[in-house]
Amino acid sequence: MLITLTTDFGYKDPFVGIMKGVIIGLNPSARIVDITHGITPHNIQETALTIVEIYPYFPANTIHVVVVDPGVGGPRRPILVEAGNQYFIGPDNGIFSLIYKANLDVMEVVHLNAEHYFMDARGSTFHGRDVFAPVAGWLSKGISIDKLGDRIKEYATIEIPSSFIEGREAFGEVLYLDHFGNAITNIKRDVIETLLNAGPAGKIEIDIQGRKAELKSYYSHALSGTLSSVINSGGFVEVFLFEGNASEMFGIKPGDKVKASISR
Amino acid sequence: MLITLTTDFGYKDPFVGIMKGVIIGLNPSARIVDITHGITPHNIQETALTIVEIYPYFPANTIHVVVVDPGVGGPRRPILVEAGNQYFIGPDNGIFSLIYKANLDVMEVVHLNAEHYFMDARGSTFHGRDVFAPVAGWLSKGISIDKLGDRIKEYATIEIPSSFIEGREAFGEVLYLDHFGNAITNIKRDVIETLLNAGPAGKIEIDIQGRKAELKSYYSHALSGTLSSVINSGGFVEVFLFEGNASEMFGIKPGDKVKASISR
Amino acid sequence: MLITLTTDFGYKDPFVGIMKGVIIGLNPSARIVDITHGITPHNIQETALTIVEIYPYFPANTIHVVVVDPGVGGPRRPILVEAGNQYFIGPDNGIFSLIYKANLDVMEVVHLNAEHYFMDARGSTFHGRDVFAPVAGWLSKGISIDKLGDRIKEYATIEIPSSFIEGREAFGEVLYLDHFGNAITNIKRDVIETLLNAGPAGKIEIDIQGRKAELKSYYSHALSGTLSSVINSGGFVEVFLFEGNASEMFGIKPGDKVKASISR
Repeated sequence: MLITLTTDFGYKDPFVGIMKGVIIGLNPSARIVDITHGITPHNIQETALTIVEIYPYFPANTIHVVVVDPGVGGPRRPILVEAGNQYFIGPDNGIFSLIYKANLDVMEVVHLNAEHYFMDARGSTFHGRDVFAPVAGWLSKGISIDKLGDRIKEYATIEIPSSFIEGREAFGEVLYLDHFGNAITNIKRDVIETLLNAGPAGKIEIDIQGRKAELKSYYSHALSGTLSSVINSGGFVEVFLFEGNASEMFGIKPGDKVKASISR
Repeated sequence: MLITLTTDFGYKDPFVGIMKGVIIGLNPSARIVDITHGITPHNIQETALTIVEIYPYFPANTIHVVVVDPGVGGPRRPILVEAGNQYFIGPDNGIFSLIYKANLDVMEVVHLNAEHYFMDARGSTFHGRDVFAPVAGWLSKGISIDKLGDRIKEYATIEIPSSFIEGREAFGEVLYLDHFGNAITNIKRDVIETLLNAGPAGKIEIDIQGRKAELKSYYSHALSGTLSSVINSGGFVEVFLFEGNASEMFGIKPGDKVKASISR
Repeated sequence: MLITLTTDFGYKDPFVGIMKGVIIGLNPSARIVDITHGITPHNIQETALTIVEIYPYFPANTIHVVVVDPGVGGPRRPILVEAGNQYFIGPDNGIFSLIYKANLDVMEVVHLNAEHYFMDARGSTFHGRDVFAPVAGWLSKGISIDKLGDRIKEYATIEIPSSFIEGREAFGEVLYLDHFGNAITNIKRDVIETLLNAGPAGKIEIDIQGRKAELKSYYSHALSGTLSSVINSGGFVEVFLFEGNASEMFGIKPGDKVKASISR
């Protein structure tokens, strides 16, 4: 049984290693894959975007443990989401918002309140170790989700900004900066296709911070040092600087407004 | 057989990958778990604190390979410690100090001098590859610890500062900063309980750098932007800034003195 | 079957986790080891140096997936290299230059153009997910390399600067800075031995940026705060600052010229 881990714990502290010890202690045959531990601390939107991007590449029955948990120890509930033949375990703070919207088969949400599946001497600051890792370990051993808690119908969601079309222009914003300094926006491929099909042929151009970033077929079609854009591997418009770092060079950051339009 | 790795090698160089290749080459069925490779370079106290925190979460017979080794190639000995049904392999420079103090069953320390278990063409700068990984590989295959070297009775330790109580106050210091900028002190839960039980009821307050940090039950009980404290997942008083980074905001760092007292 | 991963994807984004999902989805029994994801973005020389350093420590039939790919989506070909009983998969942009020069048995290079082994809905920006991970998954399941594409005789290489000897001096440069700030040069152990054997006995001294760095047997033979050098675990002269960071302290960087000479 495959278990993935996604956290904001970083790469200095032993927290992730401890979670792995707990899982393996419960189920020595569990297989563990790290997605990332470099989520920006406490950033729920970034976590939601990460989880919805990765799950399609994992096999049925994968268990995704996601611990980005600013309210640990407080009233937010620990939950388990079953969706599309996969499982998602973490705090009920909105990190699974985009999974709820993904229209997957079977969608159950369970409030993890069967505390005999938690660690014995649990504290109030590290539910990754005391709640989420043990539950993942038990689930991977075949415990049914109904034994782990009660099904619930309401759960926290966050609103991720959407793009919209007006005439032959689309308006959106930067949602995420990647390791290369590329800025991923919320404008999807189908929005671009709508713009292209709505009138005479032309090229797509992205406006960001008063700059133009022409849409290319792939990164290396751009000139060095020229802000450009591409439809990225997730299907979103991404603004980049070929052989450079767009974010560092131009101060581009999450929340920056972007506009897509036709240039002829 | 489970092998964990803890080093100060960071995440850029191929050193950790090479150690894994050596271990798997010797024992293809060894299972390897990374604890962290982000120990502050050459920091023996941080390493000792990390190792004593993780081992309780790992199953019997786990082999912990720990390579923080400023004196590599010099006279410090490579050693193996057997304690509490687990094994610890690394340089004899104090990194296992807190394991020695943990009062575990069976405590043997072996000087790793059976060089035929080392790599053949070993150099003097990378004992992780040439000494510790191969010994871990052989141990995981069932070689007895007595074949790996000679038992010794004396080995290096470092002194980790302790807290102490005077009247209804406890004095200690910051030992460790975690990834979130939280400051972990050396004041344990039982010290706080002693203070609370020594007289009229009250709240615990931590003094640090002229600031007050009230003890909360958990992180999200604190106000945003207010320095607070909590008993953390390891059982130590931890000073934090809710939804912030206490270390960056107030310059808190290892070695800073802290005082716990009763406020009424 | 063992698969290693080396990329410049860093530790924030989910790209590496996605590649692992793709591989495990194709071959649930594949074993995956991370070498590093901290290659300097788009740095082909650093990648070539990393790959040639690691492969000798991995068993026969290991598959090394290497994705440092500034020209992704463009005309550079995806390739597979079979050399010395191991496999190397990645873009044809020179990252395998030092493997080609390593004089390994069996050396075949295959242009990966059997697209039915790629992911179905592949894009143009993430060949790690769409091309290299799936091909590694299939290869690990036993698909023969001839089914994956056509053998080719010409492939991209980059020139890595070499050192040279003039009289009793050797001239080279810094190729790589490691996590500790140590500067690895291109002067090999045999060059140092040639200098030593060419005349009266003496000590080796390295000149770098107008400073002297005496060659020591190992790190801890040096004085704290004194620039020194050592023959490192890869067999190259490495300039270091004992208990310090030579790169940060003296601004040493890749490309800096170094000279080795005899001091008496």
